[in-house]
Amino acid sequence: MSLTAPLRGVVPPVCTPLDSGGEVDTASLGRLVEHLIGGGVHGLFALGSTSEVAYLTDEQRATALETVVDVADGRVPVLAGVIDTTTARVVEHAKSAKGLGADALVATAPFYTRTHGKEIAGHFRRLRDTVDLPLFAYDIPVAVHSKLSASLVRELAEDGTLAGLKDSSGDEGGLRRLLVELGGREGRAQGPTPLFSVLTGSELTVDAALLAGVDGVVPGIGNVDPAGFVRLYDAARAGDWERAAKEQERLTDLFAMVDAGPEADMGRSSSALGSFKAALRLLGVIECGDTAFPQIPLSAESLVLVARRLRAAGLPPVR
Amino acid sequence: MSLTAPLRGVVPPVCTPLDSGGEVDTASLGRLVEHLIGGGVHGLFALGSTSEVAYLTDEQRATALETVVDVADGRVPVLAGVIDTTTARVVEHAKSAKGLGADALVATAPFYTRTHGKEIAGHFRRLRDTVDLPLFAYDIPVAVHSKLSASLVRELAEDGTLAGLKDSSGDEGGLRRLLVELGGREGRAQGPTPLFSVLTGSELTVDAALLAGVDGVVPGIGNVDPAGFVRLYDAARAGDWERAAKEQERLTDLFAMVDAGPEADMGRSSSALGSFKAALRLLGVIECGDTAFPQIPLSAESLVLVARRLRAAGLPPVR
Amino acid sequence: MSLTAPLRGVVPPVCTPLDSGGEVDTASLGRLVEHLIGGGVHGLFALGSTSEVAYLTDEQRATALETVVDVADGRVPVLAGVIDTTTARVVEHAKSAKGLGADALVATAPFYTRTHGKEIAGHFRRLRDTVDLPLFAYDIPVAVHSKLSASLVRELAEDGTLAGLKDSSGDEGGLRRLLVELGGREGRAQGPTPLFSVLTGSELTVDAALLAGVDGVVPGIGNVDPAGFVRLYDAARAGDWERAAKEQERLTDLFAMVDAGPEADMGRSSSALGSFKAALRLLGVIECGDTAFPQIPLSAESLVLVARRLRAAGLPPVR
Amino acid sequence: MSLTAPLRGVVPPVCTPLDSGGEVDTASLGRLVEHLIGGGVHGLFALGSTSEVAYLTDEQRATALETVVDVADGRVPVLAGVIDTTTARVVEHAKSAKGLGADALVATAPFYTRTHGKEIAGHFRRLRDTVDLPLFAYDIPVAVHSKLSASLVRELAEDGTLAGLKDSSGDEGGLRRLLVELGGREGRAQGPTPLFSVLTGSELTVDAALLAGVDGVVPGIGNVDPAGFVRLYDAARAGDWERAAKEQERLTDLFAMVDAGPEADMGRSSSALGSFKAALRLLGVIECGDTAFPQIPLSAESLVLVARRLRAAGLPPVR
Repeated sequence: MSLTAPLRGVVPPVCTPLDSGGEVDTASLGRLVEHLIGGGVHGLFALGSTSEVAYLTDEQRATALETVVDVADGRVPVLAGVIDTTTARVVEHAKSAKGLGADALVATAPFYTRTHGKEIAGHFRRLRDTVDLPLFAYDIPVAVHSKLSASLVRELAEDGTLAGLKDSSGDEGGLRRLLVELGGREGRAQGPTPLFSVLTGSELTVDAALLAGVDGVVPGIGNVDPAGFVRLYDAARAGDWERAAKEQERLTDLFAMVDAGPEADMGRSSSALGSFKAALRLLGVIECGDTAFPQIPLSAESLVLVARRLRAAGLPPVR
Repeated sequence: MSLTAPLRGVVPPVCTPLDSGGEVDTASLGRLVEHLIGGGVHGLFALGSTSEVAYLTDEQRATALETVVDVADGRVPVLAGVIDTTTARVVEHAKSAKGLGADALVATAPFYTRTHGKEIAGHFRRLRDTVDLPLFAYDIPVAVHSKLSASLVRELAEDGTLAGLKDSSGDEGGLRRLLVELGGREGRAQGPTPLFSVLTGSELTVDAALLAGVDGVVPGIGNVDPAGFVRLYDAARAGDWERAAKEQERLTDLFAMVDAGPEADMGRSSSALGSFKAALRLLGVIECGDTAFPQIPLSAESLVLVARRLRAAGLPPVR
Repeated sequence: MSLTAPLRGVVPPVCTPLDSGGEVDTASLGRLVEHLIGGGVHGLFALGSTSEVAYLTDEQRATALETVVDVADGRVPVLAGVIDTTTARVVEHAKSAKGLGADALVATAPFYTRTHGKEIAGHFRRLRDTVDLPLFAYDIPVAVHSKLSASLVRELAEDGTLAGLKDSSGDEGGLRRLLVELGGREGRAQGPTPLFSVLTGSELTVDAALLAGVDGVVPGIGNVDPAGFVRLYDAARAGDWERAAKEQERLTDLFAMVDAGPEADMGRSSSALGSFKAALRLLGVIECGDTAFPQIPLSAESLVLVARRLRAAGLPPVR
Repeated sequence: MSLTAPLRGVVPPVCTPLDSGGEVDTASLGRLVEHLIGGGVHGLFALGSTSEVAYLTDEQRATALETVVDVADGRVPVLAGVIDTTTARVVEHAKSAKGLGADALVATAPFYTRTHGKEIAGHFRRLRDTVDLPLFAYDIPVAVHSKLSASLVRELAEDGTLAGLKDSSGDEGGLRRLLVELGGREGRAQGPTPLFSVLTGSELTVDAALLAGVDGVVPGIGNVDPAGFVRLYDAARAGDWERAAKEQERLTDLFAMVDAGPEADMGRSSSALGSFKAALRLLGVIECGDTAFPQIPLSAESLVLVARRLRAAGLPPVR
């Protein structure tokens, strides 16, 4: 399914269910894709950070992407993360993703190595020139330890390198400045980059981001409650900001599941991913809630906390 | 003017005008206070970061606070920053501020030294016990290099240590979580801390923060355009979120003046403070736009950029 | 005692003993100064980070400095920390320190506010011009969150602004580059800044720093074992690097006392300062081991660990 | 060549020469290996950060490692970097490296994802269990943004998971503490981990690190002047610390070539790697000095600076 217009709406980063041996559980992944499309989402982002892309081998990445593309079957566009340290490696992932039927690519700045704005610009341009798919820049300083500057994003938007931005920087003020520079809530469609799509990855301030003029959201916890985010998005599109905010509050409360794993025993990232997968298992969507090695599994106590959050948000576990 | 209810509305951090010798220009400061109150603000925050408190001697701090209290003359409450490295030093500022008539205190976590949540809790409790004024916690990691955790803020709100929070952390997702934990948009008045006031210092996302349920805003650029922030606040209170967002966009555009000073030649902080003061001078509010030493002054070119931003925002310079 | 030659040798940052009410215990401080001079140290650094300067009121700072100067009585030079956020405040401390008889000043870059190299240069120059005492730059990024660049230090050394550098940056490679640029182990006396003194605050690599050509060391744990550092220094001066390294190993082992306080319960800084003071109390030098509020006191268990480290290093507690 | 004793001496991270098309230039790489072995080095570290491993595709990595192993031909051991985000991906590189004849593996903590000490321990253990080669932990926070704690390294040394540590953390104080905990300069051979090898990657403080008891060094600029580092190492082994320090000073001066590229135009990493490769080209060792895309090439002016540094260090360019 090609992207003929700017991408808009709810585009969850699709979790990658694993079996107890650590391999991609394609049956569970298929059910998850149906769960998401059934919830009304507008696109799917495979192989993102929430998909545990950094933990998957190239073969596992291919299996996961292929499954998402096959099950989505053109009903919604599929964006594919092409996450690796630098250009040559990212290009290889991009070629693979195109071969597997992805509709767009999502790439970060170089990481592991220290980088520079001029290098990052070259990186995105080379990638766009080499693999002919719409390209989204993924701004995620917590993972890559550099921030895409607003001026760089604008430059790459205006020259057609980028089809969009996935902003997971957490810098909502900076995002607002970018949106205003691109023309603002009313002017963007008439501005210099009418097709450029801005998606926020900040799942706790989606109402706010939509009020500020973003086109859509990539919510990790949207795996658990896609319909909630779709309701939020629809309320915002209808100008019913009070309802959007109320829905956001419910989702924020649900999101507190990410604290289920005690900080002393595991990373924040493992705790968050583990809680999403635990919730999907409790909801009967996926078979096994394991995160990829070497992440520490949630304890039985943590699972109780996840179940409690589900119930409180009106999503009772089925097992 | 005592704070009998939770503080709400627009509470700008009052710039401290200096004369060409670097001393507090009380006449200009008086005019600035009138400019702010005339713009409809609901409170004044003296001796904050935007007031260049870190650059002022104790005597200059007293002069500035005294002037603000005198000119405000009970029309709006005056909060006083008591910014210093650790408890004993902060207590001295707090006693001075109380003596000068401040209505409330605003204190950060300890800085310069490395600190810890337990120490920070002790710090705020000792301060509240020693000087009998409502106390606001000032969460500003960019200055003090630690972040107040949501659990710490809640604990100190619930036991009555804190009357409020000024959140300049830039962590809008974390702020949303705190607001939801405190009862959310509708539940806070019925929640455990009905009088606890949450103010955001993130001046580019005020519409969003109000939608999320904050009580007010402490905008640095509110020195330049207090009436704009009051309009934004009033629109939000009236539920007219589209109008609030539109006003926010205008203010975001105006805020771009902070980039006037070239990064290679000066700090971001000097550039922002210098542009605010330059704007106030161009608007005829203050006499001299100098920032405190050793900050680098804006160049003539930068001043042209500031003037341009003022004009674009409908605030034409008068000189 | 004026500094007529570059400062060399062991210059401990003098702890500030407090009584149980939190006030400076001048009797204990006097005994500590005798302990240090008796150990053979070549200078004293009062009001440094290890002196808990950030926790002391101006009056307490004056009491501490006055005591150190009086008891030292010209036997060794006394350097005074003038630690505050920006120039005007630092100048006030500098004037006070000069009035109290300090032989030199030690100042950091501005903090709390974000700063810039050009501002830092202006800061040191203004300070040097305003108060006529030799000036040491204190490079301590862990506290002030900016790093003095080698080029800035060289510039200020060559134009006579700085009499020396106290390097607590932990960047031993950067320090080596600076030393080589200043002429290296053999060339410095003939170089552009023959009187410029480089002191390291990295107390675990003093042998290495002396091998690299530093003039001296400012060791926090030198409060506990000044004679050990003097032996290390003397061995290095005599070219007996094996002996220097062996002494450094013993001191490194002793230094492990800083881990006595459990990280979950207190900051690293409180744990380190608390262990130094606990050791001084156990050695009978000071009366009370309390650190300044709001630091968390060491537990009884932690005190046992400190005593064990003392014994292992051949410094048996006397109580 | 199997590692039957702890690795000691000079083990440069071998640059990966590229041709003008960006492919591995195996002829130049072969000459570089001869240059290094001819300079007397004791081992070779292929596919490290200085080898631009993060820029090489899997195929290019294999080509580079194969070339180094073939040309080394058992004269010195070859360590292979297995640099990737998490365990499953690293295991694949490790299997490939073993197949290509590497004598040992060098792996970092997980990166891109946020991680935790318990996860890191699991990561190294799984890797050691899965691929039977001696394993070195690569502590490089500037790249992976977490630091290996001393207690973790000790635990993994004592249980036999790790054969050694390559410390590029820049934390010389922490390294000293680790060495003392492992038994110190004299006790390590009798300590709990007699075969554990500690190598420093801090190339400006090698004399200091050897004085502290490290077993060897992995110097990036050792590509340019391997014989210099061998002389430094031999002087230290002979206890001639003055000569070691003098050699270190010459190498520190040579190292200043890394500043050749102007910071405004390129990253620090590109400037350093570019200067090493430019120097190797000027010395006639490799054919083309290009760094991998998207790194910015050094300008003609920068190349002049590199040539000047070579001449000053007694290594005159041959072209």
